Amino acid sequence: MDRIDSQPPSGFRDLLPADAAARQAMMDRIAGIFRRHGFSSIDTPALERVDVLTGGEAEVSKQMYRAKLTDNDEPLGLRFDLTVPLARYVAAHADELTFPFARYHIGNVWRGEHAQAGRYRQFIQCDADIVGPRSIVADAEIIALMYDVFRDLGLADKIIIGVSNRKVLDGLSDFLNFDASRTPAVLRAIDKRARMGWDAVAAELTAKIGLDDQQVDAIRELLDLSADSAESLLDKAHAMLQFSPRSHEGIEELRRLTALVDGLGVPRSSWAVDLSIARGLGYYTGTVFETTLTALPAFGSVCSGGRYDDLVSRFAPMKLSGVGMSVGMDRLFAALDELGLVPPTAASPARVAVLDFDATARPTVLKIASDLRNAGVPTTLYLGSDESLKGQLAWAVKGGFPFAVIIGAKEHERGVAQLKNLAERTQDEVPFAQLAGRLAV
Amino acid sequence: MDRIDSQPPSGFRDLLPADAAARQAMMDRIAGIFRRHGFSSIDTPALERVDVLTGGEAEVSKQMYRAKLTDNDEPLGLRFDLTVPLARYVAAHADELTFPFARYHIGNVWRGEHAQAGRYRQFIQCDADIVGPRSIVADAEIIALMYDVFRDLGLADKIIIGVSNRKVLDGLSDFLNFDASRTPAVLRAIDKRARMGWDAVAAELTAKIGLDDQQVDAIRELLDLSADSAESLLDKAHAMLQFSPRSHEGIEELRRLTALVDGLGVPRSSWAVDLSIARGLGYYTGTVFETTLTALPAFGSVCSGGRYDDLVSRFAPMKLSGVGMSVGMDRLFAALDELGLVPPTAASPARVAVLDFDATARPTVLKIASDLRNAGVPTTLYLGSDESLKGQLAWAVKGGFPFAVIIGAKEHERGVAQLKNLAERTQDEVPFAQLAGRLAV
Repeated sequence: MDRIDSQPPSGFRDLLPADAAARQAMMDRIAGIFRRHGFSSIDTPALERVDVLTGGEAEVSKQMYRAKLTDNDEPLGLRFDLTVPLARYVAAHADELTFPFARYHIGNVWRGEHAQAGRYRQFIQCDADIVGPRSIVADAEIIALMYDVFRDLGLADKIIIGVSNRKVLDGLSDFLNFDASRTPAVLRAIDKRARMGWDAVAAELTAKIGLDDQQVDAIRELLDLSADSAESLLDKAHAMLQFSPRSHEGIEELRRLTALVDGLGVPRSSWAVDLSIARGLGYYTGTVFETTLTALPAFGSVCSGGRYDDLVSRFAPMKLSGVGMSVGMDRLFAALDELGLVPPTAASPARVAVLDFDATARPTVLKIASDLRNAGVPTTLYLGSDESLKGQLAWAVKGGFPFAVIIGAKEHERGVAQLKNLAERTQDEVPFAQLAGRLAV
Repeated sequence: MDRIDSQPPSGFRDLLPADAAARQAMMDRIAGIFRRHGFSSIDTPALERVDVLTGGEAEVSKQMYRAKLTDNDEPLGLRFDLTVPLARYVAAHADELTFPFARYHIGNVWRGEHAQAGRYRQFIQCDADIVGPRSIVADAEIIALMYDVFRDLGLADKIIIGVSNRKVLDGLSDFLNFDASRTPAVLRAIDKRARMGWDAVAAELTAKIGLDDQQVDAIRELLDLSADSAESLLDKAHAMLQFSPRSHEGIEELRRLTALVDGLGVPRSSWAVDLSIARGLGYYTGTVFETTLTALPAFGSVCSGGRYDDLVSRFAPMKLSGVGMSVGMDRLFAALDELGLVPPTAASPARVAVLDFDATARPTVLKIASDLRNAGVPTTLYLGSDESLKGQLAWAVKGGFPFAVIIGAKEHERGVAQLKNLAERTQDEVPFAQLAGRLAV
């Protein structure tokens, strides 16, 4: 027989049980925090019409998978983020939603990126957005949400949420007297700093964008501003950015945001104003934020987002602003794995393996397995072909189950089980009725 | 501006928040039961190589979406079930797994079916399989798992799990003296009975397959066998199916299975031997089962599966048998919806809306929202632009939140909130420190 290659396609991957369980546990926690903050879940299809997804942007279009049933069909596109589907969804269902509309969405997205370590062509994003509010309280809510997500994952002291406002850098053209049409290129250059270093950014600002050395130095001075507190940093920036009303507006928004984030109980140790945050994407118009793991700054942001002014006008005659965040689940997982911070997770969820090696005891064995499950104890029953106690114990050890329950003919008669702690290599006799209590977590 | 159509592509759909939450809650319960039975989760990509998915079957191939990045790429296929990916996965990772390997997988699959009510081109399957065991105890385990899933969903008395064994009908050719090559066609015809009625089946058996009336009557007599108990039904079938060793083997397996299912505590009111279950799919070789909602028999099976002999030999030089089940999540959800059995679910998970209508009280309002969330109470904060208490209350009522917390300047000073029960239209004053306790579920 010709055998078919069993590896997943290039750029895609399988998750083994322990990794799948660890990632699922993290996603369940994140979803729980989203709900605790009052965000509703939605679902949208993985396939969307191509015009919905691309809106004519060529860069996006190159990375997008197109899918069809037959050669004659119009292709559909596999979504590459959860923001564009949100925009379409809000336009389609505006009459059925209550605004401001706080929604979360956890799902796969697909991008045809070049395969490299830690980058896959299918990955999970966990998005939360508030659609509709103009109030900057919503921006503070999103920062509080990000903080709670990381705190719940046990990472409050391992991350820093950097916060800026797009208007601060948008106003650079006033302050430094260059043409505003160069601003997007300047922001894209600044955005590369963490990855490529300042020298590369400076070279791009001068050689490609045409700023002079004085302008570049002024930008660096602004980005490197530091102070004891968010407030004094903002004071310094305000003083520095003369004649730039747009920058001043951004700074005033950051000042109000700071008080609101304090008010929502986010400790200053977990977030900071960081004026170097540019966020390359075009659609942010106000607050922007990025979350980095303090032990892995070069890894880049694992959770980012910001405020945008116009989400749905491509689809419907409405102008809705919003603010949102996205956790790059698989990137976060890879980073935590590198840091040894993924909680150790068993391949099997079963807390106990009930062995089944003695035909006379089998009715009892089945009943015990059923009783343990009914009591909420995750339980596996031995189903292999090895009929020896020794062989079944070796299987239970290999499977990594914390406990084994042993019931042979003698135990069956006496109404007791041998409860073996496989990690500690201890064993004691437990009456059937007490097994579930002993195995409760 | 040219606006882009905001509807999802034909055959696909969005879920509104209440439906998304209700479906997610069901999936979370199902995953919990899978884990309680010791099943590990895995993940595989949505896109697989085309040869992996089709194995050359034309019917499958027609319903499969093909996706690619550029016109020159080899296309990949969107998976149309979770069983083929399981087979590839087991072959790829056999060295890293412990057998018997009990895995669950909840995920989207895609099929280009003709759009019709309740049928979508993307739908969720919840699969659980045990790969490797030859023991029929594994078959009983899967039936017990199915029962627990439906019991946990509150549907134990609303469903019936019909159980048969493929060998019983496979042996019909011995018993009725027709050529064994006609068996698959006979099974496919029988499989249509619930949907199309017996007359259509009988017509197909005679006109298309060439059985005579006597043979058709004998088949009907077998399928319609009834008795007070599984055991006496099996006795009758045994007596009827003379000279058919294969059928007798199936009946003996069902007899042993019955005792094991009893042993695992599944009540006879929730399952029954039903010899009319054929399961059209070719790969089942032993136990087969289908679950129907007793109030909607014509809706068809919402959870089915069976035992197969050869899962992975297409991918690796091993022969692994297994037994598994699949819940058609979206079909089940549609059926329960039709029966009014989907638990009423709010669009928002928030139990309380904290209003924010008075600037002087805002620091307290933010703190209360944060405190409630920290205490585990799902909480939303008003973020709209209406600054009146009346307008914000109207928003809270429209949003369907059970409670609203009202803190104006006076409440802020006195350290109390007005807690309004929006459903019962009652209100009382609650000190800040007692709010979380009052709102705990």
